[in-house]
Amino acid sequence: MTVTRNIFYISDRTGLTAENIGEALLNQFSNIEFKRATYPFIDTAEKARSVVDIVNRAAESQGRRPIAFVSVVNNEIRQIIKEANAFQINFFDTFLGELEKELDVEATTAHHGHHGIGNTQRYDARMEAVNFSLNHDDGVSDKNLKEADVILMGVSRSGKTPTCLYLALQYGIRAANYPLIPDDLESADLPRMVKPYKEKLFGLTIQPERLQAIRQERRPNSTYSKIDTCRSEISDAQSMFKRHGIPFTNTTDKSVEELAVHILQACKLKRRF
Amino acid sequence: MTVTRNIFYISDRTGLTAENIGEALLNQFSNIEFKRATYPFIDTAEKARSVVDIVNRAAESQGRRPIAFVSVVNNEIRQIIKEANAFQINFFDTFLGELEKELDVEATTAHHGHHGIGNTQRYDARMEAVNFSLNHDDGVSDKNLKEADVILMGVSRSGKTPTCLYLALQYGIRAANYPLIPDDLESADLPRMVKPYKEKLFGLTIQPERLQAIRQERRPNSTYSKIDTCRSEISDAQSMFKRHGIPFTNTTDKSVEELAVHILQACKLKRRF
Repeated sequence: MTVTRNIFYISDRTGLTAENIGEALLNQFSNIEFKRATYPFIDTAEKARSVVDIVNRAAESQGRRPIAFVSVVNNEIRQIIKEANAFQINFFDTFLGELEKELDVEATTAHHGHHGIGNTQRYDARMEAVNFSLNHDDGVSDKNLKEADVILMGVSRSGKTPTCLYLALQYGIRAANYPLIPDDLESADLPRMVKPYKEKLFGLTIQPERLQAIRQERRPNSTYSKIDTCRSEISDAQSMFKRHGIPFTNTTDKSVEELAVHILQACKLKRRF
Repeated sequence: MTVTRNIFYISDRTGLTAENIGEALLNQFSNIEFKRATYPFIDTAEKARSVVDIVNRAAESQGRRPIAFVSVVNNEIRQIIKEANAFQINFFDTFLGELEKELDVEATTAHHGHHGIGNTQRYDARMEAVNFSLNHDDGVSDKNLKEADVILMGVSRSGKTPTCLYLALQYGIRAANYPLIPDDLESADLPRMVKPYKEKLFGLTIQPERLQAIRQERRPNSTYSKIDTCRSEISDAQSMFKRHGIPFTNTTDKSVEELAVHILQACKLKRRF
């Protein structure tokens, strides 16, 4: 029998943290169906009270209290949310007191996340990195390639672009990418454009069947999307990575988040903000 | 007196969740300096033991135990990490038992986050959205604009591109963007290219001083980067948004994450994965 439970993510910021940890926890309960709603930017007493109403109504209409993941920095708002008829997992309430004890100081709820100057710097670093990645997408230009933090290399549709953009947005990393075309793969040498930057190269591989499915979407029934083409391109690319000692990873079962963290580790890169 | 404390983020996945909630908590302690290290993908007993060693050595050399934010799904690995000489904030240990009680079932640690089929679907949605956003960056094409989930509109350098890419990567949203050039701003009408999609439009504004600083970086001492130019372009853009009833927000003090969530709310968009 499948049970459905209402899940509320409540936050005075974006709610992303509450969602992430909530999903990680809910993932452990595969037999239950969850119905989710996120209430971000609950940053006034009025908004908090209206969320409490919504939660209470859900509890009543379901005849069962919802589960609320609450990530609210502001103490006053947290106290209002607490009144809601829900099983509450409250990150700040649970951990802030413990941390105060360990650090032997009181928390100062005055300042508020990434705002102000910190935000501007973060924004600039992101902006610069995103522009860099866009200007160096698909090997369009070797201009300023020496300023790249990393250059992702792989066959067409192996996942380079989303990974580069994620590295730029999440970490401010300047990630260029270079697509290995058949001409490159036939040569024993590294492609001319990236050869001077060998130490910045990172390779992406992918399962041939998965690559075929992706390419088939894009250009159905072409040579490009034949399984044999995919197999031989991937095999040539891997040989190239091994021959030149370029670190590489298989993207097939990895999310963009996981790929990004793998690359940071392998290339010893640090976030720029 | 500034105290320095060692912070460890330990995870059997990317560590992003541990970092996010850890940073939100540490942000509340402004007088303490934190030295951070993240250990992602700690997914074997061997790796776990080597992290325990690192933490223990840090405790010894500092004469004070570090603080560890631990987000480890696997129970065996969690038990190993627990031996480390650190003040530990452990998300799964703290909340999983409570959730089991509330849901009245035992957690099944078998399945593992975004892997497998779920990952493939998520990847496809992202890929498609990222490609869409790249193909519709800076108003380069009105092809398929009717397939856009949202079209961000604003003057040059108001933050459209990073926001579009973030919406695509994080939520699978197809976000196009259209830069308002002086010709557009002089007209009382909406730009021809986006006029048919009025209900999808969302406007971005920005503080003139901030815009000037960004433009100055790009084209120093040009008309484009003069404060008067920035002021009048922004004012014209805001008038346009108001005249046509287009929802808009000021990007100046918002992170890309916050912008994205604002836009989702205002446009009633749902994540595509």
